[in-house]
Amino acid sequence: MARVSQEHLDARRRQILDGAALCFARNGFHATSMQDVLKEVGLSAGAVYRYFAGKDELIAAIASEVLTEIRGIFDTAARQSPPPPPDVLLGQVIEEVLDLRPGMREGGISYFPRLMVQVWTETLRSDALSAVMTGVYAEVRAAWVSVVEAYQEAGMMRTDVPADHVARTMIAVVQGFAAQYALFEEVRVEALQDGLRALTSMRRPS
Amino acid sequence: MARVSQEHLDARRRQILDGAALCFARNGFHATSMQDVLKEVGLSAGAVYRYFAGKDELIAAIASEVLTEIRGIFDTAARQSPPPPPDVLLGQVIEEVLDLRPGMREGGISYFPRLMVQVWTETLRSDALSAVMTGVYAEVRAAWVSVVEAYQEAGMMRTDVPADHVARTMIAVVQGFAAQYALFEEVRVEALQDGLRALTSMRRPS
Repeated sequence: MARVSQEHLDARRRQILDGAALCFARNGFHATSMQDVLKEVGLSAGAVYRYFAGKDELIAAIASEVLTEIRGIFDTAARQSPPPPPDVLLGQVIEEVLDLRPGMREGGISYFPRLMVQVWTETLRSDALSAVMTGVYAEVRAAWVSVVEAYQEAGMMRTDVPADHVARTMIAVVQGFAAQYALFEEVRVEALQDGLRALTSMRRPS
Repeated sequence: MARVSQEHLDARRRQILDGAALCFARNGFHATSMQDVLKEVGLSAGAVYRYFAGKDELIAAIASEVLTEIRGIFDTAARQSPPPPPDVLLGQVIEEVLDLRPGMREGGISYFPRLMVQVWTETLRSDALSAVMTGVYAEVRAAWVSVVEAYQEAGMMRTDVPADHVARTMIAVVQGFAAQYALFEEVRVEALQDGLRALTSMRRPS
Protein backbone atom coordinates (compact mmCIF):
# COMPACT_ATOMS: atom_id res chain seq x y z
CA MET A 1 0.00 0.00 0.00
CA ALA A 2 1.27 3.47 -0.90
CA ARG A 3 2.18 5.65 2.03
CA VAL A 4 -0.22 8.52 2.36
CA SER A 5 1.31 11.86 3.31
CA GLN A 6 0.10 13.85 6.30
CA GLU A 7 -0.76 16.71 3.94
CA HIS A 8 -3.01 14.42 1.98
CA LEU A 9 -4.75 13.23 5.14
CA ASP A 10 -5.20 16.80 6.36
CA ALA A 11 -6.55 17.98 3.02
CA ARG A 12 -9.00 15.09 2.86
CA ARG A 13 -10.17 15.78 6.41
CA ARG A 14 -10.59 19.47 5.52
CA GLN A 15 -12.61 18.53 2.42
CA ILE A 16 -14.98 16.40 4.50
CA LEU A 17 -15.39 19.07 7.20
CA ASP A 18 -16.11 21.80 4.61
CA GLY A 19 -18.64 19.74 2.68
CA ALA A 20 -20.38 18.59 5.84
CA ALA A 21 -20.45 22.14 7.24
CA LEU A 22 -22.16 23.32 4.06
CA CYS A 23 -24.78 20.53 4.30
CA PHE A 24 -25.40 21.28 7.98
CA ALA A 25 -25.66 25.03 7.33
CA ARG A 26 -28.24 24.39 4.61
CA ASN A 27 -30.44 21.86 6.34
CA GLY A 28 -29.43 21.63 9.97
CA PHE A 29 -27.66 18.85 11.82
CA HIS A 30 -30.73 16.67 12.23
CA ALA A 31 -32.18 16.77 8.74
CA THR A 32 -28.77 16.08 7.15
CA SER A 33 -27.86 12.42 6.65
CA MET A 34 -24.39 10.95 6.18
CA GLN A 35 -25.56 10.15 2.62
CA ASP A 36 -26.05 13.89 2.03
CA VAL A 37 -22.53 14.54 3.30
CA LEU A 38 -21.02 11.79 1.11
CA LYS A 39 -22.78 13.22 -1.93
CA GLU A 40 -21.60 16.75 -1.16
CA VAL A 41 -17.95 15.82 -0.67
CA GLY A 42 -17.94 13.26 -3.47
CA LEU A 43 -16.24 10.56 -1.44
CA SER A 44 -17.16 6.99 -0.59
CA ALA A 45 -18.51 6.00 2.81
CA GLY A 46 -15.28 4.09 3.43
CA ALA A 47 -13.17 7.19 2.77
CA VAL A 48 -15.26 9.38 5.08
CA TYR A 49 -15.65 6.88 7.94
CA ARG A 50 -11.86 6.58 8.00
CA TYR A 51 -11.84 10.13 9.43
CA PHE A 52 -15.12 10.33 11.36
CA ALA A 53 -16.92 7.48 13.06
CA GLY A 54 -20.32 9.01 12.32
CA LYS A 55 -22.46 12.09 12.17
CA ASP A 56 -22.12 12.91 15.87
CA GLU A 57 -18.34 12.99 15.59
CA LEU A 58 -18.61 15.24 12.52
CA ILE A 59 -21.01 17.59 14.32
CA ALA A 60 -18.71 17.81 17.35
CA ALA A 61 -15.67 18.51 15.15
CA ILE A 62 -17.45 21.20 13.14
CA ALA A 63 -19.07 22.87 16.12
CA SER A 64 -15.83 23.11 18.07
CA GLU A 65 -14.02 24.38 14.95
CA VAL A 66 -16.67 27.09 14.47
CA LEU A 67 -16.25 28.20 18.08
CA THR A 68 -12.45 28.20 17.85
CA GLU A 69 -12.50 30.29 14.68
CA ILE A 70 -14.91 32.83 16.16
CA ARG A 71 -12.86 33.09 19.33
CA GLY A 72 -9.77 33.76 17.22
CA ILE A 73 -11.50 36.60 15.35
CA PHE A 74 -12.80 38.24 18.52
CA ASP A 75 -9.40 37.86 20.23
CA THR A 76 -7.41 39.37 17.37
CA ALA A 77 -9.84 42.27 17.02
CA ALA A 78 -9.57 42.98 20.74
CA ARG A 79 -5.76 43.24 20.58
CA GLN A 80 -5.68 46.54 18.67
CA SER A 81 -4.27 49.47 20.66
CA PRO A 82 -5.94 51.87 20.85
CA PRO A 83 -9.12 49.98 19.96
CA PRO A 84 -11.18 51.48 17.13
CA PRO A 85 -14.67 52.70 18.10
CA PRO A 86 -17.41 50.03 18.43
CA ASP A 87 -18.88 50.46 14.94
CA VAL A 88 -15.46 49.93 13.31
CA LEU A 89 -14.44 47.11 15.65
CA LEU A 90 -17.67 45.14 15.34
CA GLY A 91 -17.72 45.75 11.57
CA GLN A 92 -14.25 44.18 11.34
CA VAL A 93 -15.31 41.17 13.38
CA ILE A 94 -18.39 40.55 11.26
CA GLU A 95 -16.54 40.98 7.96
CA GLU A 96 -14.03 38.39 9.11
CA VAL A 97 -16.74 35.97 10.22
CA LEU A 98 -18.38 36.28 6.79
CA ASP A 99 -15.00 35.71 5.08
CA LEU A 100 -14.35 32.48 6.99
CA ARG A 101 -14.47 29.42 4.74
CA PRO A 102 -14.72 30.81 1.21
CA GLY A 103 -16.09 27.36 0.30
CA MET A 104 -19.19 28.16 2.34
CA ARG A 105 -20.38 30.99 0.09
CA GLU A 106 -23.20 30.40 -2.36
CA GLY A 107 -24.45 33.21 -4.62
CA GLY A 108 -22.50 35.83 -2.69
CA ILE A 109 -24.05 34.76 0.62
CA SER A 110 -21.95 33.29 3.42
CA TYR A 111 -23.48 30.22 5.02
CA PHE A 112 -21.31 30.64 8.10
CA PRO A 113 -23.94 32.57 10.15
CA ARG A 114 -26.45 29.79 9.43
CA LEU A 115 -23.93 27.33 10.78
CA MET A 116 -23.51 29.51 13.89
CA VAL A 117 -27.26 29.41 14.56
CA GLN A 118 -27.28 25.63 14.06
CA VAL A 119 -24.42 25.35 16.56
CA TRP A 120 -26.39 27.39 19.10
CA THR A 121 -29.31 25.00 18.80
CA GLU A 122 -27.05 22.01 19.10
CA THR A 123 -25.46 23.56 22.19
CA LEU A 124 -28.87 23.58 23.87
CA ARG A 125 -28.97 19.78 23.57
CA SER A 126 -25.38 18.78 24.14
CA ASP A 127 -23.65 19.10 27.51
CA ALA A 128 -20.23 18.55 25.93
CA LEU A 129 -20.76 21.31 23.38
CA SER A 130 -22.28 23.54 26.02
CA ALA A 131 -19.07 23.24 28.07
CA VAL A 132 -16.96 24.22 25.06
CA MET A 133 -19.30 27.13 24.26
CA THR A 134 -19.21 28.41 27.84
CA GLY A 135 -15.40 28.33 27.84
CA VAL A 136 -15.17 30.19 24.54
CA TYR A 137 -17.68 32.79 25.67
CA ALA A 138 -15.72 33.42 28.88
CA GLU A 139 -12.49 33.93 26.93
CA VAL A 140 -14.11 36.25 24.39
CA ARG A 141 -15.69 38.28 27.17
CA ALA A 142 -12.34 38.64 28.94
CA ALA A 143 -10.68 39.87 25.75
CA TRP A 144 -13.46 42.37 25.11
CA VAL A 145 -13.41 43.62 28.68
CA SER A 146 -9.91 44.88 27.88
CA VAL A 147 -11.32 46.77 24.88
CA VAL A 148 -13.97 48.40 27.05
CA GLU A 149 -11.37 49.29 29.68
CA ALA A 150 -9.31 50.96 26.96
CA TYR A 151 -12.38 53.05 25.99
CA GLN A 152 -12.82 53.96 29.64
CA GLU A 153 -9.13 54.86 30.12
CA ALA A 154 -9.20 57.03 26.98
CA GLY A 155 -12.13 58.98 28.47
CA MET A 156 -14.43 57.73 25.68
CA MET A 157 -16.77 55.79 27.97
CA ARG A 158 -18.26 56.26 31.42
CA THR A 159 -16.55 54.26 34.13
CA ASP A 160 -19.55 53.68 36.41
CA VAL A 161 -20.66 50.65 34.38
CA PRO A 162 -18.93 47.24 34.69
CA ALA A 163 -16.76 46.68 31.63
CA ASP A 164 -18.03 43.11 31.44
CA HIS A 165 -21.59 44.34 30.87
CA VAL A 166 -20.49 46.46 27.93
CA ALA A 167 -18.45 43.55 26.55
CA ARG A 168 -21.51 41.27 26.70
CA THR A 169 -23.63 43.88 24.97
CA MET A 170 -21.11 44.27 22.14
CA ILE A 171 -20.97 40.49 21.73
CA ALA A 172 -24.79 40.44 21.66
CA VAL A 173 -24.73 42.88 18.73
CA VAL A 174 -22.54 40.48 16.75
CA GLN A 175 -24.73 37.49 17.68
CA GLY A 176 -27.89 39.38 16.73
CA PHE A 177 -26.38 40.39 13.42
CA ALA A 178 -25.45 36.77 12.73
CA ALA A 179 -29.05 35.72 13.46
CA GLN A 180 -30.44 38.39 11.11
CA TYR A 181 -27.96 37.50 8.37
CA ALA A 182 -28.79 33.81 8.69
CA LEU A 183 -32.53 34.46 8.64
CA PHE A 184 -32.83 37.29 6.13
CA GLU A 185 -29.58 37.28 4.12
CA GLU A 186 -29.95 40.81 2.70
CA VAL A 187 -28.59 42.40 5.88
CA ARG A 188 -25.41 44.38 5.16
CA VAL A 189 -22.57 44.97 7.60
CA GLU A 190 -22.76 48.71 6.80
CA ALA A 191 -26.29 48.86 8.21
CA LEU A 192 -25.05 47.61 11.57
CA GLN A 193 -22.09 49.98 11.50
CA ASP A 194 -24.44 52.90 10.76
CA GLY A 195 -26.67 51.84 13.61
CA LEU A 196 -23.78 51.58 16.05
CA ARG A 197 -22.38 54.93 14.93
CA ALA A 198 -25.74 56.57 15.60
CA LEU A 199 -26.22 54.83 18.98
CA THR A 200 -22.68 55.59 20.21
CA SER A 201 -23.02 59.27 19.34
CA MET A 202 -26.41 59.89 20.96
CA ARG A 203 -26.98 63.01 23.00
CA ARG A 204 -28.95 61.86 26.01
CA PRO A 205 -31.16 64.14 28.03
CA SER A 206 -29.47 64.57 31.39
CA MET B 1 -72.22 12.87 23.96
CA ALA B 2 -71.84 15.92 26.16
CA ARG B 3 -71.43 19.18 24.35
CA VAL B 4 -67.96 20.60 24.87
CA SER B 5 -67.75 24.33 25.39
CA GLN B 6 -65.52 26.53 23.26
CA GLU B 7 -63.69 27.60 26.41
CA HIS B 8 -62.90 24.00 27.18
CA LEU B 9 -61.59 23.43 23.66
CA ASP B 10 -59.47 26.58 23.83
CA ALA B 11 -58.06 25.67 27.24
CA ARG B 12 -57.17 22.19 26.07
CA ARG B 13 -55.51 23.55 22.95
CA ARG B 14 -53.56 26.01 25.14
CA GLN B 15 -52.48 23.18 27.45
CA ILE B 16 -51.12 21.18 24.51
CA LEU B 17 -49.31 24.16 23.00
CA ASP B 18 -47.69 25.09 26.33
CA GLY B 19 -46.53 21.56 27.10
CA ALA B 20 -45.22 21.03 23.59
CA ALA B 21 -43.42 24.40 23.64
CA LEU B 22 -41.65 23.40 26.84
CA CYS B 23 -40.58 20.07 25.33
CA PHE B 24 -39.33 21.78 22.18
CA ALA B 25 -37.48 24.46 24.16
CA ARG B 26 -35.73 21.75 26.19
CA ASN B 27 -34.74 19.36 23.43
CA GLY B 28 -35.41 20.98 20.08
CA PHE B 29 -38.07 20.23 17.50
CA HIS B 30 -36.28 17.25 16.00
CA ALA B 31 -35.26 15.37 19.13
CA THR B 32 -38.75 15.72 20.64
CA SER B 33 -41.26 12.99 19.82
CA MET B 34 -45.04 13.17 20.01
CA GLN B 35 -44.68 10.66 22.87
CA ASP B 36 -42.62 13.24 24.80
CA VAL B 37 -45.36 15.82 24.20
CA LEU B 38 -48.14 13.46 25.33
CA LYS B 39 -46.20 12.66 28.49
CA GLU B 40 -45.59 16.35 29.24
CA VAL B 41 -49.22 17.42 28.76
CA GLY B 42 -50.64 14.29 30.39
CA LEU B 43 -53.18 13.64 27.64
CA SER B 44 -53.89 10.65 25.44
CA ALA B 45 -52.82 10.53 21.81
CA GLY B 46 -56.48 10.67 20.81
CA ALA B 47 -57.03 13.88 22.76
CA VAL B 48 -53.96 15.60 21.27
CA TYR B 49 -54.49 14.47 17.68
CA ARG B 50 -57.97 15.94 17.84
CA TYR B 51 -56.26 19.35 17.88
CA PHE B 52 -53.07 18.79 15.90
CA ALA B 53 -52.59 16.30 13.07
CA GLY B 54 -48.97 15.74 14.01
CA LYS B 55 -45.67 17.21 15.12
CA ASP B 56 -45.27 19.41 12.04
CA GLU B 57 -48.61 21.08 12.70
CA LEU B 58 -47.66 21.63 16.34
CA ILE B 59 -44.29 23.13 15.35
CA ALA B 60 -45.96 25.47 12.86
CA ALA B 61 -48.55 26.59 15.42
CA ILE B 62 -45.95 27.21 18.13
CA ALA B 63 -43.48 28.96 15.86
CA SER B 64 -46.06 31.34 14.46
CA GLU B 65 -47.40 32.01 17.96
CA VAL B 66 -43.86 32.85 19.19
CA LEU B 67 -43.40 35.29 16.33
CA THR B 68 -46.81 36.90 16.90
CA GLU B 69 -46.10 37.38 20.60
CA ILE B 70 -42.70 38.91 19.97
CA ARG B 71 -44.11 41.22 17.32
CA GLY B 72 -46.74 42.38 19.82
CA ILE B 73 -44.11 43.20 22.45
CA PHE B 74 -41.93 45.15 20.02
CA ASP B 75 -44.96 47.01 18.62
CA THR B 76 -46.31 48.04 22.02
CA ALA B 77 -42.88 49.18 23.20
CA ALA B 78 -42.46 51.27 20.06
CA ARG B 79 -45.74 53.12 20.65
CA GLN B 80 -44.52 55.12 23.68
CA SER B 81 -44.27 58.85 23.08
CA PRO B 82 -41.68 60.12 23.66
CA PRO B 83 -39.78 56.84 23.46
CA PRO B 84 -37.54 56.07 26.44
CA PRO B 85 -33.80 55.85 25.68
CA PRO B 86 -32.53 52.60 24.12
CA ASP B 87 -31.37 50.97 27.37
CA VAL B 88 -34.79 51.45 28.98
CA LEU B 89 -36.74 50.51 25.86
CA LEU B 90 -34.77 47.34 25.11
CA GLY B 91 -34.82 46.40 28.78
CA GLN B 92 -38.63 46.61 28.75
CA VAL B 93 -38.84 44.44 25.63
CA ILE B 94 -36.58 41.77 27.06
CA GLU B 95 -38.36 41.71 30.44
CA GLU B 96 -41.65 41.15 28.63
CA VAL B 97 -40.21 38.41 26.45
CA LEU B 98 -38.94 36.64 29.58
CA ASP B 99 -42.36 37.04 31.23
CA LEU B 100 -44.23 35.44 28.32
CA ARG B 101 -45.69 32.08 29.23
CA PRO B 102 -45.18 31.75 32.97
CA GLY B 103 -45.60 28.00 32.38
CA MET B 104 -42.30 28.02 30.53
CA ARG B 105 -40.18 28.92 33.56
CA GLU B 106 -38.16 26.26 35.33
CA GLY B 107 -35.99 27.12 38.34
CA GLY B 108 -36.39 30.85 37.75
CA ILE B 109 -35.17 30.53 34.16
CA SER B 110 -37.44 31.32 31.22
CA TYR B 111 -37.30 28.76 28.44
CA PHE B 112 -38.74 31.24 25.96
CA PRO B 113 -35.34 32.38 24.57
CA ARG B 114 -34.45 28.73 23.96
CA LEU B 115 -37.66 28.39 22.01
CA MET B 116 -36.75 31.51 20.01
CA VAL B 117 -33.40 30.00 19.01
CA GLN B 118 -35.13 26.74 18.05
CA VAL B 119 -37.56 28.74 15.90
CA TRP B 120 -34.66 30.47 14.15
CA THR B 121 -33.15 27.12 13.26
CA GLU B 122 -36.49 25.80 12.05
CA THR B 123 -36.91 28.95 9.94
CA LEU B 124 -33.71 28.07 8.07
CA ARG B 125 -35.35 24.83 6.92
CA SER B 126 -38.95 25.84 6.34
CA ASP B 127 -40.02 28.15 3.51
CA ALA B 128 -43.46 28.63 5.08
CA LEU B 129 -41.99 29.66 8.44
CA SER B 130 -39.39 31.80 6.70
CA ALA B 131 -42.18 33.77 4.99
CA VAL B 132 -43.91 34.37 8.34
CA MET B 133 -40.60 35.37 9.95
CA THR B 134 -39.77 37.82 7.14
CA GLY B 135 -43.18 39.45 7.47
CA VAL B 136 -42.88 39.82 11.23
CA TYR B 137 -39.37 41.23 10.93
CA ALA B 138 -40.53 43.83 8.39
CA GLU B 139 -43.34 44.95 10.70
CA VAL B 140 -41.11 45.16 13.75
CA ARG B 141 -38.54 47.14 11.80
CA ALA B 142 -41.17 49.60 10.62
CA ALA B 143 -42.41 50.15 14.18
CA TRP B 144 -38.88 50.68 15.46
CA VAL B 145 -38.01 53.06 12.63
CA SER B 146 -40.62 55.35 14.16
CA VAL B 147 -38.81 55.12 17.53
CA VAL B 148 -35.52 56.08 15.90
CA GLU B 149 -37.18 58.95 14.03
CA ALA B 150 -38.52 60.20 17.36
CA TYR B 151 -34.95 60.16 18.76
CA GLN B 152 -33.82 62.09 15.70
CA GLU B 153 -36.63 64.63 15.93
CA ALA B 154 -35.89 65.17 19.63
CA GLY B 155 -32.29 66.01 18.75
CA MET B 156 -31.04 62.92 20.61
CA MET B 157 -29.62 61.14 17.56
CA ARG B 158 -27.76 62.16 14.41
CA THR B 159 -29.94 62.33 11.32
CA ASP B 160 -27.34 61.36 8.71
CA VAL B 161 -27.88 57.65 9.35
CA PRO B 162 -30.91 55.79 7.94
CA ALA B 163 -33.39 55.14 10.76
CA ASP B 164 -33.87 51.61 9.47
CA HIS B 165 -30.21 50.79 10.11
CA VAL B 166 -30.51 51.90 13.73
CA ALA B 167 -33.77 49.93 14.11
CA ARG B 168 -32.05 46.78 12.82
CA THR B 169 -29.16 47.28 15.20
CA MET B 170 -31.47 47.67 18.19
CA ILE B 171 -33.34 44.51 17.17
CA ALA B 172 -29.97 42.74 16.85
CA VAL B 173 -29.20 43.64 20.48
CA VAL B 174 -32.41 41.90 21.61
CA GLN B 175 -31.73 38.86 19.42
CA GLY B 176 -28.16 38.62 20.71
CA PHE B 177 -29.36 38.87 24.29
CA ALA B 178 -31.87 36.08 23.64
CA ALA B 179 -29.07 33.91 22.23
CA GLN B 180 -26.86 34.55 25.29
CA TYR B 181 -29.72 33.91 27.71
CA ALA B 182 -30.62 30.67 25.93
CA LEU B 183 -27.00 29.50 25.86
CA PHE B 184 -25.70 30.73 29.22
CA GLU B 185 -28.77 31.43 31.37
CA GLU B 186 -26.99 33.57 33.98
CA VAL B 187 -27.21 36.68 31.77
CA ARG B 188 -29.19 39.43 33.47
CA VAL B 189 -31.24 42.11 31.72
CA GLU B 190 -29.48 44.75 33.84
CA ALA B 191 -26.13 43.83 32.26
CA LEU B 192 -27.49 44.62 28.81
CA GLN B 193 -29.05 47.83 30.06
CA ASP B 194 -25.72 48.88 31.62
CA GLY B 195 -23.94 48.09 28.37
CA LEU B 196 -26.41 50.10 26.31
CA ARG B 197 -26.25 53.00 28.73
CA ALA B 198 -22.46 53.09 28.40
CA LEU B 199 -22.50 52.74 24.61
CA THR B 200 -25.18 55.40 24.07
CA SER B 201 -23.32 57.90 26.22
CA MET B 202 -19.87 57.50 24.65
CA ARG B 203 -17.77 60.54 23.89
CA ARG B 204 -16.28 59.84 20.53
CA PRO B 205 -13.10 61.50 19.31
CA SER B 206 -14.12 63.91 16.56
